[in-house]
Amino acid sequence: MHQAPADPTIGELSEGEILARIAARTGRAASAIVGPGDDAAVVAALSGSVVATTDTLVHGPDFRLAWSSGYDLGWKAAAVNLADVAAMGARPTALLVALAMPNDTRVSFVEALADGLRDACDALAPGCAVVGGDLTVSATLTVAVTALGDLEGRQAVLRSGAREGDVVAVAGELGVAARGLSVLFDRFRDASGSPVPVDPARLGAGEADILRGQLRPSPPIGLGPMAATAGAHAMMDVSDGLGLDARRMADASDVTIDLMAATLGPDVVSAIEGGEDHALLATFADDVLPPGFRAIGRVVARGEAPLLVDGRPYAGPGGWDPYRDWDSVSG
Amino acid sequence: MHQAPADPTIGELSEGEILARIAARTGRAASAIVGPGDDAAVVAALSGSVVATTDTLVHGPDFRLAWSSGYDLGWKAAAVNLADVAAMGARPTALLVALAMPNDTRVSFVEALADGLRDACDALAPGCAVVGGDLTVSATLTVAVTALGDLEGRQAVLRSGAREGDVVAVAGELGVAARGLSVLFDRFRDASGSPVPVDPARLGAGEADILRGQLRPSPPIGLGPMAATAGAHAMMDVSDGLGLDARRMADASDVTIDLMAATLGPDVVSAIEGGEDHALLATFADDVLPPGFRAIGRVVARGEAPLLVDGRPYAGPGGWDPYRDWDSVSG
Repeated sequence: MHQAPADPTIGELSEGEILARIAARTGRAASAIVGPGDDAAVVAALSGSVVATTDTLVHGPDFRLAWSSGYDLGWKAAAVNLADVAAMGARPTALLVALAMPNDTRVSFVEALADGLRDACDALAPGCAVVGGDLTVSATLTVAVTALGDLEGRQAVLRSGAREGDVVAVAGELGVAARGLSVLFDRFRDASGSPVPVDPARLGAGEADILRGQLRPSPPIGLGPMAATAGAHAMMDVSDGLGLDARRMADASDVTIDLMAATLGPDVVSAIEGGEDHALLATFADDVLPPGFRAIGRVVARGEAPLLVDGRPYAGPGGWDPYRDWDSVSG
Repeated sequence: MHQAPADPTIGELSEGEILARIAARTGRAASAIVGPGDDAAVVAALSGSVVATTDTLVHGPDFRLAWSSGYDLGWKAAAVNLADVAAMGARPTALLVALAMPNDTRVSFVEALADGLRDACDALAPGCAVVGGDLTVSATLTVAVTALGDLEGRQAVLRSGAREGDVVAVAGELGVAARGLSVLFDRFRDASGSPVPVDPARLGAGEADILRGQLRPSPPIGLGPMAATAGAHAMMDVSDGLGLDARRMADASDVTIDLMAATLGPDVVSAIEGGEDHALLATFADDVLPPGFRAIGRVVARGEAPLLVDGRPYAGPGGWDPYRDWDSVSG
């Protein structure tokens, strides 16, 4: 009889066998009426609408396998999508995961990825889980996640709702993920610039947490629905950097946003220009903010510049655009 | 002032500029409460649940650019996902599209892809449209689509519901897409085996239609909800070949499916083994089938073999498994 290798590649198993191994690890969504295994999933949407978003991680521009484990990758792919649902004021209910992987990918890697998806849901959005997905062969490892959510009767909070006089507030980290990426790029590449695995012995004080912010971000998903309940006028997640995303909110709302540098921590440039933390950026009419949010600025009348810092136009780059900044290194 | 090239690559434009060009072409979903442009879309789900599925097309295993235009690719990516929604008995309401593309992809290609997505929705599932998406840079062109749908109060029709005595029926083509793939592989490759563009002058009678079945399939999406209303016991779409998918239905339902070869057209092997038509396979208690469905067999008590043809176990391969059959040719 055929003896299965201890850790086969996905090319050695059928699609059905791989899907069964993933489904055994990802748990069940509380809202799932029909879970994985049919043509499609059916998810409860009791309030009569569904929030839906999709975001993809691609090997090369979005992660390097020398730095990210399968678990990290699954966690991050879940977290970035959960944040987009939360930023509408919705509670995440379900994930769909499209995996495109080289044939020589180890099944243990795929299983770790499934564990990361599950644990991110359990930690950040309890009740949410994978309800379906798709497997494809590809030369480039790609994880495309779609997240669904329920507004539970709340109005969706758009990025276009900021009003003059609003307090600008944020919940979650700013700049930590970018500092983590700097640690990786500056210290864990070889002479040719290729990524090499992180050696924990070479990390300074606090750097393990900073790296975790990059590889396994934990945005405050539960605060999205709370902000909506508290009457947030506008909300979005900070995926490409506070500067760029605050400009987007200002443009969508036809206002100017004035940030206070003193509220942005010791490393103001990282806080404004660093992406990938997926903090929640929101505006509120009231100075009394919901728990977890801190004031970082004020909405003012639309001026020439969409973004000010301490009343002056911010001259630095606004954030990270994957189409402009990709350096094409994989590894 | 900077003069934009007539047909720039996506590397020459910002993510926002590309998204605006796509959004200008994809129309608006009738069910969209919040459409593209925010962190997530909001789609009506009036009956209190949402059907959701995801399926990915990857350059190489799933399509070749010498054979598929951007328009073909958009059409097919929509069609295969709409079929999964229809196979649950639901009406498709919205698509989310995650595009991962090489930096040198022409914007005209992306625009044609958007046109194909829109036209497939308009033709196959009126009211459905793209409500959101994601753009990423990748070495491998990848189109991951998530489709949402509404059961409108109907019960979801699962693949596990077939009962002994049911009529097995199908709506849509069987084997046409596979014959189209054969035309491409047999006649439109160069001496080294690489795909070359189709020369219409070299197509025989009817072959243009057969190619269209492969490159731009038109599954009978509207018949999915009709089958559910008519009381279908089980339903799924035939994506990997009738043989393999009927076996899956038989296994999920713990029955055996007995197909009648005489109902499968002149090319029985193509009909049983050819994938990618996305016909709807369903079982009904009654011999009176809903319009558009034709009887192709009978559900019998579970025997040793899940699949029979004319009462005898079918010996041929059951269909197409992308993990086993990928030949790694791109082009």
